[in-house]
Order: sequence, then structure tokens, then C-alpha cells
Amino acid sequence: MNRYSLNQATTKYWSLEEVVAASAEAGLSWIGLWREPIQEYGVERSAKLVADAGLRVSSLCRSGFFTATDAAERRTRIDDNRRAIDEAATVGTGVLILVSGGLPTGSRDIDGAREMVRDGLAELAPYAEERGVRLAVEALHPMFCSDRCVVSSLGGALDLAEQFPASQVGVVVDAYHLWWDAELYRQIERAGDRICSYQVSDWVVPLPADTLLGRGMMGDGSIELRRMREACDAAGYDGPVEVEIFNQDLWNAPGQEVFDLALASYREHVA
Amino acid sequence: MNRYSLNQATTKYWSLEEVVAASAEAGLSWIGLWREPIQEYGVERSAKLVADAGLRVSSLCRSGFFTATDAAERRTRIDDNRRAIDEAATVGTGVLILVSGGLPTGSRDIDGAREMVRDGLAELAPYAEERGVRLAVEALHPMFCSDRCVVSSLGGALDLAEQFPASQVGVVVDAYHLWWDAELYRQIERAGDRICSYQVSDWVVPLPADTLLGRGMMGDGSIELRRMREACDAAGYDGPVEVEIFNQDLWNAPGQEVFDLALASYREHVA
Repeated sequence: MNRYSLNQATTKYWSLEEVVAASAEAGLSWIGLWREPIQEYGVERSAKLVADAGLRVSSLCRSGFFTATDAAERRTRIDDNRRAIDEAATVGTGVLILVSGGLPTGSRDIDGAREMVRDGLAELAPYAEERGVRLAVEALHPMFCSDRCVVSSLGGALDLAEQFPASQVGVVVDAYHLWWDAELYRQIERAGDRICSYQVSDWVVPLPADTLLGRGMMGDGSIELRRMREACDAAGYDGPVEVEIFNQDLWNAPGQEVFDLALASYREHVA
Repeated sequence: MNRYSLNQATTKYWSLEEVVAASAEAGLSWIGLWREPIQEYGVERSAKLVADAGLRVSSLCRSGFFTATDAAERRTRIDDNRRAIDEAATVGTGVLILVSGGLPTGSRDIDGAREMVRDGLAELAPYAEERGVRLAVEALHPMFCSDRCVVSSLGGALDLAEQFPASQVGVVVDAYHLWWDAELYRQIERAGDRICSYQVSDWVVPLPADTLLGRGMMGDGSIELRRMREACDAAGYDGPVEVEIFNQDLWNAPGQEVFDLALASYREHVA
């Protein structure tokens, strides 16, 4: 269990203090954090809370969103990404997870949007490296391509990442987003030391009305989570495995119950 | 407009006679048919209706669904596919569109499911060729991978098709299902003479509660439909282009209105 990390988004209605305390109490080594709750709690204060509990931060979610119709807006987003890099450095994680952004409003130019992502990475990568942070490009499921993320496969994420040194830009392997891909295991092998994070949840149908909240508990769905974990291991990844589940029913359940269930499900289906 | 074909599913509540009459009246050369309505009307009677109107059938939808938990059920499905081949031959089309089927109930074995698809194709392909029909493997959008179609990309469809002679097994390029793929244009080039059909509609968000009915009219969404059509042309495809839209609002609108709108939208965004 020394690789297990609960991403705090899984117990969304728990405070940072609650999820940190539960993780420490369970003897975990890692925790996954989000920007909004640590900004609210105070970034340095969050860093101290986590460190005092004996935990390390597996990743900070989430920055990116490089695609925009005009240059001023793209500049604003680059500035926000710099702040995210600083926050990652402050909480002591080497992994900042980036979601690229969808097609700019009214645009169909998917190649152009992907170029904006590359340009954003180019601007940020040297600064990130200075701060000891790797930019982790996350492909989202293709159903989010138009409105959230024009990077829709691990191959597409690697096409971007490989334009930069591996020390600066890596990729996230998120089971929910990638499991359907006939290229998946070839691309995990290709990814090698670019893999910054392996994230798990499960694919369950039918999708809810808000498709962002469709993720299931490990074991409740269709994904070969252990096989993907073993493939990441074989590619050389030995870092933390993050449980990250966005699901309204789980959010509504008591935090400790979800915490315990996630840990047990991870043992049964991933570890 | 000599490549234009309206798939009858677009005007779902029109009778076969109505959609055939409208297509002939508009001077079209092609029409796309579905199995259920032509079975209801009578397959030979449908063939005569279409031929008498001076139309040719661009494709017959839809067969496949090779994945099942037990051998008896898989056998039943193979038998149904043979009937579909006969129906395609009877209505005079060389293209039978196949959707592979999702994961068998309770299974996570995606490789095993894809092997079932390959085995189904192997059993049917020689018979299809005898009857002058090509099996056209259609990749569905990855959001349908678990419950409808384990073939989720054009590359995945080609991995299957290429195990058979091109005269027996080809692929469908359906814009709605494939547009997000960073590999798309490389895979269209790879597909070459395997391309049996180019189908168009558009990607609009948000998705409806029934994700099967999320397709928009050409021009209403995010897809570079003309670019994809030109890529298929460059790969050597010069066959019909089918408009196939599943959308409850369009189904509820008067048939002739949708018919006219589809034709105009095709001219503006695809031709």
C-alpha cells in the first residue's frame, strides 16, 4: 500500500484537514491535492499540514486550459499556470497535472488548438523545471474533446510531451480516460519514463447527465485496472497510484465510508 | 451532389416510401437503409421500391454484435449476420455496416471481446464475398466501448479488417465517432481502399441523457467534415457520403424540413 494515494477530489466534501488526518491515520504515504481547496486553506499552510502528517503530495491538480480565442486570454492562462507551478513547488510535489482545454469557442480547428497547447507547454516547461515540477499532460476521454481537452489519447499526449525533455514534460495515465484504446498498451510502453502518474477509477454505464461525474469505484465497471497498473510498472513507473473519483453519490456519502471503500477496492482491483 | 446519400435513420418517423420519394424527387442517386424498416416493408419489396425510384443503396445498417458470454448466443448472432448479408445483397448494396458489440455482460476482457469480433468476421467474410457484400467494420465513439462497440478508433477497426482481404472486409469512416483522434488522418491514409463509407453528422455539446441521440446537423458542431471528406477522397474513396443523424429534435420535426436542411447543410459543410 505504499504507492496508494487518495486524491482529495474523491472525498470532495471533506475538508483538507479531514482527508489529511484520515490518510495519516490509515498509515498512507501519499495524498493527491487540488488547487482550489489548498488555495482556500492557504498554500503554505496546506504544505505544512501535509508534511506534519507525514504525507507526501503525489500530484497537484489542475492547470492547463491553454486554448482560447484571443492572445490576451491565452496570456492570462499562462500566468495562472505559473502560479500553479509555484503552488506545486510549495506543497512539495514534482507533478502538476494539466488539462489542455477544448476547442476555442466557435472554432473547429483541432490542430490549431493542439498547437496552442504545445506553445503553452513550451513557455512553461523551463520554469517548471527550475521549480522542480514536471508538467504532466493528461489526455481526457474523447467525449470531452470539444469542450475540455483536445488531447484525447495517450498517443496524443505523448505526441505533445515528446517535443520536450522528459525531465520537463510527462504524461498522466488515467484509466477512466484511456481504457478503451486499442493502442493503449503500446502507448504505455512508448511512454516509459514520461509516466508521471497513474490514476484509477472505473467506467460505469449509463453515464450521468453531467458526464464529468460518471466515474465509478474501482471494481464497479469495465476497466482492467490491475493490468494497466502492471503495464505502467513494466514501462518503469514506480510512483504513487492515485484514486480519483468524481461521483455525486460517493460525494454525498460519509467521507470515512468512501475513504475505507476506496482503500479496500484498490487492494482488490489494482494493487 | 451525386455522392450524397440520406440514411433513412435521419428521418426516422418517415416511412420507407416517404424517404425514397423525397430522395428521388430531389434527384439524388443514393439512399442509406436500415434493416428493421426494410424487414417491416419486405426486403424484396424494398429493393423494388428503391430501384423503381432510380436510387441505389449506399449501405445497409446494421449488423454485427459478435460479443456474447456464451457460444450459443454467439451462434445466434452469426446466423443473424448471414441474414443481414442476404438482405444487403437483395437491396443491391455492396456495403453491410457492422457494429462489433460491447464487452460481454460482466466481462472486462477487452482483448477477448475483440477476438470474438475477429472470429465473427472470419466466419462471415467468405459468405459475404460470395454474395457481393463487403463487411464494413464501424468504430463507435469510445463512450460506447463498454456497452455497444469494443472497436473505438479507426486504427482499431483497421487492425481487425486487415486480417482479411480488402474485398471482404472494410471500414466505415463516421465523422461523429472518429473526429477527436490525433491519429485520424494517418489512419484514413492507412485505410485506403478499405474505406466503404463516409458518414457525416456533427458533435454538439452537451450530450443528451441518451448519448445515442447526441448527433447534430452538419455545421452545428465541432467537426471538420469537409477536411475529413477530402482526406477520404485523397485515400482513394469516391463512393457515397451518407448523412446519418440520430437526434430526437430532428426526428420530431417534419420530415421534409429535415430532408431539406440536411441537403443544404451537406452542401455548405461537406461537399
